[in-house]
Amino acid sequence: MSTSTRRGRRPGRPDTKAAILVAARERFAASGFGGTTIRAIANDAGVDAALVHHYFGSKDDLFVAALELPVDPRAVIGAAVAGPAEEAAEKLLRTFLSVWDDPGFQPALLATVRRILEPGGDKLIREGFLPVVLLPVGEQLGIDRPDLRMPLVASQVIGLIVARYVVRIEPIATLEPEHLVAIYAPTIQRYLTGPLP
Amino acid sequence: MSTSTRRGRRPGRPDTKAAILVAARERFAASGFGGTTIRAIANDAGVDAALVHHYFGSKDDLFVAALELPVDPRAVIGAAVAGPAEEAAEKLLRTFLSVWDDPGFQPALLATVRRILEPGGDKLIREGFLPVVLLPVGEQLGIDRPDLRMPLVASQVIGLIVARYVVRIEPIATLEPEHLVAIYAPTIQRYLTGPLP
Repeated sequence: MSTSTRRGRRPGRPDTKAAILVAARERFAASGFGGTTIRAIANDAGVDAALVHHYFGSKDDLFVAALELPVDPRAVIGAAVAGPAEEAAEKLLRTFLSVWDDPGFQPALLATVRRILEPGGDKLIREGFLPVVLLPVGEQLGIDRPDLRMPLVASQVIGLIVARYVVRIEPIATLEPEHLVAIYAPTIQRYLTGPLP
Repeated sequence: MSTSTRRGRRPGRPDTKAAILVAARERFAASGFGGTTIRAIANDAGVDAALVHHYFGSKDDLFVAALELPVDPRAVIGAAVAGPAEEAAEKLLRTFLSVWDDPGFQPALLATVRRILEPGGDKLIREGFLPVVLLPVGEQLGIDRPDLRMPLVASQVIGLIVARYVVRIEPIATLEPEHLVAIYAPTIQRYLTGPLP
């Protein structure tokens, strides 16, 4: 069952891709990112592992696809932190808020957050989002102690998400994005490059 | 139906108290704190409003009881911020972590957080926890702009809760409490008393 044969028959069958994504989400949630193999996902979905690679690329890519985010966070965050680490906080926050404030993206992002916050969903972020998305950002920035700093950034960003979009606490829910950037940038910048105990 | 008569007959019948708490949780979740009356809760529970007051005190007290927290956050937080506002962050964080790290309290606290994060649970924190618990702390501290500062504090504390206890992101999940106090105190202190845009 080569990729070309399959492509010749049914190019990107929606139900096959959907079955792979369902299998991927269940595997990643149950076993975490490290404990999941493409082969196991392919097996669950009843397809060949080569087909999974053909449709989704690497395991990292499949993980991000399985999160069902409206944007690839690696591309968005990567672009936001392209400059010097000492100026990254403002850009990160501005990018982050522009994506989350977009009414075309927000429902899907909220659904992902709710899935992560459900019992069992913790592995998705702990063993997937963190190593696949967040820690590479720390490496790209070239900061020291990325294993501590990026989780600290995550802890304030998660709190901001919950306050602004999930629980909608005023005035955080309705403040202008630039006002929030100005408020939170010193916190995020200290977590990224400031002195830490 | 005087208090003494009722006390004489059935002192704090567990099923009546439970029925009042169930009615209170449903009302507070559906209508928020401001939109809920003791009378409506009493009606839902099939008891007299005076009995609700007798068992639970004020509407504030009933709200806190309905949260089913293992401690009264007003007492704990109030004691933690009894000193000057300029030193409140460390004490708040230390108290907060000691309660959350207590294995006797953590399951009930986690259950409350999950309830708040579920769809519909947002009103519990937005229209209840914030005005009943958090804003009075700001007033007790005598800080300016408590309506902005206390929600900012909440946004970092929520993120810390999610990172340490819900999603269990390393190293935040296992760092010593005093290490976390040292890391987060400057953030919380700036939100409480520092310069803000």
